[in-house]
Amino acid sequence: MPAHLLLIDCPDERGLVHRISGVLSRYEFNITSNHEFVDTTRNHFLMRTAFTGGNDARSAIAELQKSLPAGAHVRLASDQKRPVVIIVTKEAHCLGDLLLLAAWGDYPAEIKAVIGNHALLGPLVDKFGIPFHHIPHEGLGRPEHEEAIQAAIAPYRPDYLVLAKYMRVLSPAFIAKWQRQIINIHHSFLPAFIGANPYRQAYERGVKIIGATAHFVTDDLDEGPIIAQNVVPVSHAHSASEMAQAGQDVEKIVLAKALRLVLEERVFQHGNRTVVFE
Amino acid sequence: MPAHLLLIDCPDERGLVHRISGVLSRYEFNITSNHEFVDTTRNHFLMRTAFTGGNDARSAIAELQKSLPAGAHVRLASDQKRPVVIIVTKEAHCLGDLLLLAAWGDYPAEIKAVIGNHALLGPLVDKFGIPFHHIPHEGLGRPEHEEAIQAAIAPYRPDYLVLAKYMRVLSPAFIAKWQRQIINIHHSFLPAFIGANPYRQAYERGVKIIGATAHFVTDDLDEGPIIAQNVVPVSHAHSASEMAQAGQDVEKIVLAKALRLVLEERVFQHGNRTVVFE
Amino acid sequence: MPAHLLLIDCPDERGLVHRISGVLSRYEFNITSNHEFVDTTRNHFLMRTAFTGGNDARSAIAELQKSLPAGAHVRLASDQKRPVVIIVTKEAHCLGDLLLLAAWGDYPAEIKAVIGNHALLGPLVDKFGIPFHHIPHEGLGRPEHEEAIQAAIAPYRPDYLVLAKYMRVLSPAFIAKWQRQIINIHHSFLPAFIGANPYRQAYERGVKIIGATAHFVTDDLDEGPIIAQNVVPVSHAHSASEMAQAGQDVEKIVLAKALRLVLEERVFQHGNRTVVFE
Amino acid sequence: MPAHLLLIDCPDERGLVHRISGVLSRYEFNITSNHEFVDTTRNHFLMRTAFTGGNDARSAIAELQKSLPAGAHVRLASDQKRPVVIIVTKEAHCLGDLLLLAAWGDYPAEIKAVIGNHALLGPLVDKFGIPFHHIPHEGLGRPEHEEAIQAAIAPYRPDYLVLAKYMRVLSPAFIAKWQRQIINIHHSFLPAFIGANPYRQAYERGVKIIGATAHFVTDDLDEGPIIAQNVVPVSHAHSASEMAQAGQDVEKIVLAKALRLVLEERVFQHGNRTVVFE
Repeated sequence: MPAHLLLIDCPDERGLVHRISGVLSRYEFNITSNHEFVDTTRNHFLMRTAFTGGNDARSAIAELQKSLPAGAHVRLASDQKRPVVIIVTKEAHCLGDLLLLAAWGDYPAEIKAVIGNHALLGPLVDKFGIPFHHIPHEGLGRPEHEEAIQAAIAPYRPDYLVLAKYMRVLSPAFIAKWQRQIINIHHSFLPAFIGANPYRQAYERGVKIIGATAHFVTDDLDEGPIIAQNVVPVSHAHSASEMAQAGQDVEKIVLAKALRLVLEERVFQHGNRTVVFE
Repeated sequence: MPAHLLLIDCPDERGLVHRISGVLSRYEFNITSNHEFVDTTRNHFLMRTAFTGGNDARSAIAELQKSLPAGAHVRLASDQKRPVVIIVTKEAHCLGDLLLLAAWGDYPAEIKAVIGNHALLGPLVDKFGIPFHHIPHEGLGRPEHEEAIQAAIAPYRPDYLVLAKYMRVLSPAFIAKWQRQIINIHHSFLPAFIGANPYRQAYERGVKIIGATAHFVTDDLDEGPIIAQNVVPVSHAHSASEMAQAGQDVEKIVLAKALRLVLEERVFQHGNRTVVFE
Repeated sequence: MPAHLLLIDCPDERGLVHRISGVLSRYEFNITSNHEFVDTTRNHFLMRTAFTGGNDARSAIAELQKSLPAGAHVRLASDQKRPVVIIVTKEAHCLGDLLLLAAWGDYPAEIKAVIGNHALLGPLVDKFGIPFHHIPHEGLGRPEHEEAIQAAIAPYRPDYLVLAKYMRVLSPAFIAKWQRQIINIHHSFLPAFIGANPYRQAYERGVKIIGATAHFVTDDLDEGPIIAQNVVPVSHAHSASEMAQAGQDVEKIVLAKALRLVLEERVFQHGNRTVVFE
Repeated sequence: MPAHLLLIDCPDERGLVHRISGVLSRYEFNITSNHEFVDTTRNHFLMRTAFTGGNDARSAIAELQKSLPAGAHVRLASDQKRPVVIIVTKEAHCLGDLLLLAAWGDYPAEIKAVIGNHALLGPLVDKFGIPFHHIPHEGLGRPEHEEAIQAAIAPYRPDYLVLAKYMRVLSPAFIAKWQRQIINIHHSFLPAFIGANPYRQAYERGVKIIGATAHFVTDDLDEGPIIAQNVVPVSHAHSASEMAQAGQDVEKIVLAKALRLVLEERVFQHGNRTVVFE
């Protein structure tokens, strides 16, 4: 991670780059990497700039904010590892990959806790010395179950929630509390095979490629902004369960990549789409 | 292409491979390549065998037919180039690729004619010395238009019709006449984005990968058995029209591959799925 | 895994399939999946057949053996999990992925032990309740170091040794003891970038794709039969260390896939090449 | 193509973006797309900016030039189709694809002429109404043959020469005349399989993936800066000639993509590497 990372999201205007680079130049920063994107269909400007050196980044940001159009979001990102909470059901592959990356890889997440509506994955989480909260949904209404989950999450103050094969639908009320902060892995190449049993659907349709999609969660089930997608070839010789197995590799890779992109501040949510500066 | 290619499609029974290989062995054939697939969910047996040497392949086939279960399809494929007719509208990329492959590549198709509901691609077809029939749909009902197309096709006696970006929907009556013989390229990764304007849909959904699907045409629009699929990555920086341009490469590659697989007798249609022996 | 898996490797002759299927048929087995490949350049026959039902598989195999050409290898594979020992240095990504798959996935390996020439990965292995042997090479000649490794391996009687980013070269004597049983992951798309520092080489060459290769180990460093390969796109914006990070995902996927293929008896070593029945 | 495209290549200094955007802002241009890359290992700055509106782009460029460090290259790119000459031997797939794209696609090249050391591809070029020069090498020394080629090229004043499967090695003298202007397609995934017969090499090595590389030509055979690469999976069942056939699709796609990137001014040559702004 660079010493400073500046994120700007605002209506487009002529001269924006000049104004922004002027402030950075006056404070004697060196820009080492710069991505901009102007969505001309919406007249919107997005920018991610890494810079080093200089002095008093906070004053620079304050000055920047004043020089930009009304409604501009300007933010200096941290280069610390970011706190996340993972929510699971029974499948280990995505969770395990994230636990390994956070513990042994050069990965920008700190996994604060894992919550499961089943107890099955507790022993895996325990191995990594991370708290596991088993919050079963049996016998509870959805509001009560979600309230219990919220209560478990709260003390960890995560920046993001990661649904690593959490097999229940979250309520609009829950999603509203974590607006733009929930990342899901969908076991399909969206928008194909929305909903349940996608590998069964894929088998019956006889597809030759299956995929996985990581996306932000919005009220529209499986319709939030897409962050990353990838695919793997399959054939007639794959049963539905072998397709699911083949899909697990691509699911874990896509989710881990998407979370990395988000935590490295490379992803802007923009309408129902993302802009990803790789 | 091998000297002989044998194709068998029948209900499964114990000892089938032994019976088949026994007949081939008695006639002194050498098997050089063999693919079998048993769909255990439907108790169905499919086999593609290439063999050389021996004598009197036709008698061998007749004997085979007698030894197999009722309802067996046994067929000796030709190693000649296969006659096809291509139907187009205005886009040149798939048509051009097939014309080049058939004229200059080692490709198993002989393109007998091209039919267009617009005149635009006539000059391209002319370059290759192949008849182009302009059959406009304006002012005609669908039955009359399709009748004119059928009349144009008939003298060429094609084994397959290839819809190389033909932008009109064929009637069930037309499809019934060419049962299992029409191959379409769908400008999307089916079953995502069924129907019109898939690149516009893909752009609005913000997908990170687009694809193309070659499939047999059945009455269900875009729902016939899939032969081949492939994908290409895209990003937020692609407009809908740039996605379409990126999609053209993958469309032409997927259609040319699917037609090759079909003409090399590597594709069995089996229920609403295909079995592809690559 | 099917009830029985039969593997045959022998010189080609006319009528082999008929003889083999005849024996299986007489013993009342049902063939559920069958792969054959005849290497016509070497006149060699390879076959992998899954079958169910029937009785007395061992007698069937003995009869088969008698009916095949001299030099035939006939083998009935086990459907048990197969014992492996993993050898590592300092990198966790491949080891961690295999530990997770073996403990939580539907994966055909039983990891008996892990050996490291550094102590670093001991705590990761400990989490999974698997013995870790730290056998440092400092102060030892290669023969002594390898002897210590051999002594550590011996009690586990593994079917395969997996070099999961083991960064030392094994001696011909060591390799000879584990002929055709050592699988290595090479951090490059062989035969590009043989040897050390492949990501540095790839960066300096400015490649647009990097890859990984899993292969059997022979005396020729990085030249043994290739089992599986895959790639990932990179750009000018990747530093050598970012290329290495991008490469870790593809390394772990390729090694885990190759080991699965080998343990499911889908891989034949044939000269300096493999035949892989997927 | 945008109304204006500005390309800057110069030593890095603090405040460059601010100076450049200042000039563009004063001339009332709107930046619609902007890519920069600072190679911190060489302290070098590269920029590609598309802009619209404003007035007097030439004066703006002149002013820019003055404000940049010594040694800066500043250039306003044309949005016209760019003249190219293609050089071939006997294979049609890359040439045919470029002819189709230039004639029927939305493609930035104007193919002025094709030169072949064999006559075979003349009829294909004739179809497109483009001059074909057959310049056989038999009976000529390399200097004389290359002189004849240079003489044929000269009147067309191409921006780039495209070697579309030209199977002879060009002399340093020839290359020196077209410094940074020759694009080659290498029938392999460089740096694997440098030199002749790569598909035979790939077959004998038993690789599972083959690829193609488009690169600028320098004196070091097959060692010039890489522009684009892609791969396609193969298996033991592919003969060397089937690998070559499978390779043709990826060769034509990679060469057409690379040439598009170059003509759209997305490729900077930088040392022995390229920076590609996609």
